[in-house]
Amino acid sequence: MTRERLQDVSEGELLSRLFPIFGDTVGPAEVLLGPGDDAAVLAAPSGGVVLTTDSMVRGRDWRDDWSSPTEIGHKVVAQNVADIAAMGAVPTGLLITLAADPATEVAWVLALGEGIARAAREAGAPVLGGDLSAAGEGSIVVGITAVGDLQGHRAVRRDGAEPGDVVAVRGSLGRSGGGLQLLLAGRGHTHRDPPLGETGDSLARAIEVLCRVHRRTEDVPWRAGPEAAAAGATAMIDLSDGLVRDLGRVAAASGTRIELDGRALAAFAAGPLTLALGAEEAMRQVLSGGEEHSLAATFAPAAVPDGWEVIGVCTDGSGEVVVDGQVPPVTGWDHFSG
Amino acid sequence: MTRERLQDVSEGELLSRLFPIFGDTVGPAEVLLGPGDDAAVLAAPSGGVVLTTDSMVRGRDWRDDWSSPTEIGHKVVAQNVADIAAMGAVPTGLLITLAADPATEVAWVLALGEGIARAAREAGAPVLGGDLSAAGEGSIVVGITAVGDLQGHRAVRRDGAEPGDVVAVRGSLGRSGGGLQLLLAGRGHTHRDPPLGETGDSLARAIEVLCRVHRRTEDVPWRAGPEAAAAGATAMIDLSDGLVRDLGRVAAASGTRIELDGRALAAFAAGPLTLALGAEEAMRQVLSGGEEHSLAATFAPAAVPDGWEVIGVCTDGSGEVVVDGQVPPVTGWDHFSG
Repeated sequence: MTRERLQDVSEGELLSRLFPIFGDTVGPAEVLLGPGDDAAVLAAPSGGVVLTTDSMVRGRDWRDDWSSPTEIGHKVVAQNVADIAAMGAVPTGLLITLAADPATEVAWVLALGEGIARAAREAGAPVLGGDLSAAGEGSIVVGITAVGDLQGHRAVRRDGAEPGDVVAVRGSLGRSGGGLQLLLAGRGHTHRDPPLGETGDSLARAIEVLCRVHRRTEDVPWRAGPEAAAAGATAMIDLSDGLVRDLGRVAAASGTRIELDGRALAAFAAGPLTLALGAEEAMRQVLSGGEEHSLAATFAPAAVPDGWEVIGVCTDGSGEVVVDGQVPPVTGWDHFSG
Repeated sequence: MTRERLQDVSEGELLSRLFPIFGDTVGPAEVLLGPGDDAAVLAAPSGGVVLTTDSMVRGRDWRDDWSSPTEIGHKVVAQNVADIAAMGAVPTGLLITLAADPATEVAWVLALGEGIARAAREAGAPVLGGDLSAAGEGSIVVGITAVGDLQGHRAVRRDGAEPGDVVAVRGSLGRSGGGLQLLLAGRGHTHRDPPLGETGDSLARAIEVLCRVHRRTEDVPWRAGPEAAAAGATAMIDLSDGLVRDLGRVAAASGTRIELDGRALAAFAAGPLTLALGAEEAMRQVLSGGEEHSLAATFAPAAVPDGWEVIGVCTDGSGEVVVDGQVPPVTGWDHFSG
């Protein structure tokens, strides 16, 4: 049996198979006009919109032997929605762009769509439209633009932290980076490995969890962003490049020093991360592992909402992040120089 | 002298060179938060936003030997803004995504940015942010998401045309398709050829104009979209895939027949198109040439605004487009099957 590829179907045929997948992501109230016209129309009840865009590239941001298309679709939506949440906004809609080699299997694209739709439903953000393009041999680029609404709150920027504020995290740390480390070391759990379910020892299950977090991004605390805005967060950021690097951006933009508490961070390294990687590497991932898409924010000490873990304080200074008084050794990462 | 490539500079360095290029596209009033945070914040004064996205892929949507990066940047913005205008909206902002081979020259990317900024200024749509990714060898994908505001008008969809309405065009027809035809035939004018200015005979200048329209997209009638909405346009579409195909979408969505007047269309074929391509090919390009990004709309006969050329009428029927009573032979185009 030959596998059906993009070049075997018309764009209209492909869209007619994708639209039903996205159909039930579209709620009735806010979407004034969905896919199919020149552009979509979305309600912006509070008189402003929050906008972000982020792409994933085959071979750079995912490997086909590790990640399924459904996982990739989930991840690209999750990382965009995390950026919306980090402004204190509620996600209200998504646009998708796909540039793909015409030899790409249609089934792969439909599975990507399933993952996008799943994350869209989780976030309550309908798929409003998108764009399909042919790309060169082997190339696939998936882009998402996410739109959000501030619901009357002001946007929580990176530059509002002040000495005396506490620093808190909502969600996990280091899990995605830990999963990547395991996959790179050949000890990982890929989409091709059978799920363990209730079987497997605790080490195998720890590895499975960490790798799944890396492959699809899980448990992004979307609702906590608007809650933090309502609670008066002074600064907030989505943790995409690692805790220390991203808090460094808050510290630099705000003109403060951030002092983190090693004991508070050790709690994030405990459990599956330490089991799978050992204590030292686990702590390294907590400090510098990327693509976690948890939220970090600063608050007045009495204003920290439930569910946030305090990990440090802001003090006088500018731009430094220290752990127990020391500048931690954090490896860099750059899109182009790798 | 070695040429500086993306892999030679950090993402932060590249952004620090791009931001000034986009800086003066940002007006003070509507942009509540520009590039540099997790997401941008844009005013949506009328309580809704119009959203569209469109990408260009190297080797598919442009050829480096024909088009300069500045032209490509101008074109990708123009085609997105045309979609916003075709809903009757005013463009209010742009997001950019670039996925590029790390071996791409930095100068190429900065020139792309110049073209994006030029079109953004023309359209009055600030660059709000974007995303940079590394892509595979030789691959460059440029994506734009455009946002617009309806300024209190309802969105002009494709499905509102009614029997008795007239069909009108704002802008040119067939020029971009004609330019592509000349480039494909080896008779074209590329970005590497010196501009003719006041020199050159009328044929050479006709070829130069048509090819420049194809390479960068010129004279998109952005302001005419909101004007048509204000004048009560019943349906509107951006002409991206050719007049007959795009009007076929209006006819199908609206459940009408569209009867075009060959004499009215011949006026669009006259001049540079006929000079460069001959009368027959010129008319073929008027009917089916793509990427013109002019606007077509339907109006009650007394409601056609100044500057729009009436080219036909809507009658009882469903989905057909005829020219002087005949179904025209129009070649198809598909992104994936080519």
